[in-house]
Amino acid sequence: MTRYSRALCPNYQAAVNLIGKRWTGLVLLILMDGPARFGELLEKLEVVGDRILSERLKELEAEGVVERRVLPTHPVRVEYELTEKGRALAPVIDALAKWGDTWVSIDPKQAAEFEAAADAEEAEEKTPSRRTKRKAAGAA
Amino acid sequence: MTRYSRALCPNYQAAVNLIGKRWTGLVLLILMDGPARFGELLEKLEVVGDRILSERLKELEAEGVVERRVLPTHPVRVEYELTEKGRALAPVIDALAKWGDTWVSIDPKQAAEFEAAADAEEAEEKTPSRRTKRKAAGAA
Repeated sequence: MTRYSRALCPNYQAAVNLIGKRWTGLVLLILMDGPARFGELLEKLEVVGDRILSERLKELEAEGVVERRVLPTHPVRVEYELTEKGRALAPVIDALAKWGDTWVSIDPKQAAEFEAAADAEEAEEKTPSRRTKRKAAGAA
Repeated sequence: MTRYSRALCPNYQAAVNLIGKRWTGLVLLILMDGPARFGELLEKLEVVGDRILSERLKELEAEGVVERRVLPTHPVRVEYELTEKGRALAPVIDALAKWGDTWVSIDPKQAAEFEAAADAEEAEEKTPSRRTKRKAAGAA
């Protein structure tokens, strides 16, 4: 019926699948600092195309993790903000960051493999290869 | 050079990529309880083919997260065990499990989407569609 392994906590599996989807973990990391506009997210993510970012945000909205808010300014301003469910992921993000800082050191080989995987995924998603070229001005 | 977003902690991104790879989170969850043989892992995972499990274990070995041990018994017995680096993932696993139990409830639609995604991934990995049919005897 379902391909979740029933003996092994399907809720845990769903949590892993949510955060593990490419770029989602990084979007959540950014939004932990507070609401951000689409363009701000693009700048901070540096290497993510706007179509993929848009898909990820829609998925996170559908999961109830992110809320899209249209502010009544002129011109209107659209912001993305974590919901309570999203903010509750803070311990997960913190634990991943701590483990990464303690145990991971990125070497050129890993970076190359990562890049190849990213290219394969993006080709599969039929996303234009256009990249944002803006500098990550807000990230300093 | 690298497609890691440099402004945003590459070690965090590497940690997310490691745990987020399909089935890896579940393999780690099982091994948190102690060493396991290949067949035991297959039984507990229920829906994972032996080729994919073998790939995942090799990746985790290459990352230094899992150690493969050949015990000098007759016949020889092969066990997989978390290394210190792997055991250090416990806070991540715990946080994901807690978040999942609090915020996720699997519904049939999600299960169907999950299944479709799994099929797509396995087709991509050109893995035989054979599944283990053993009951998860040890999981009760």
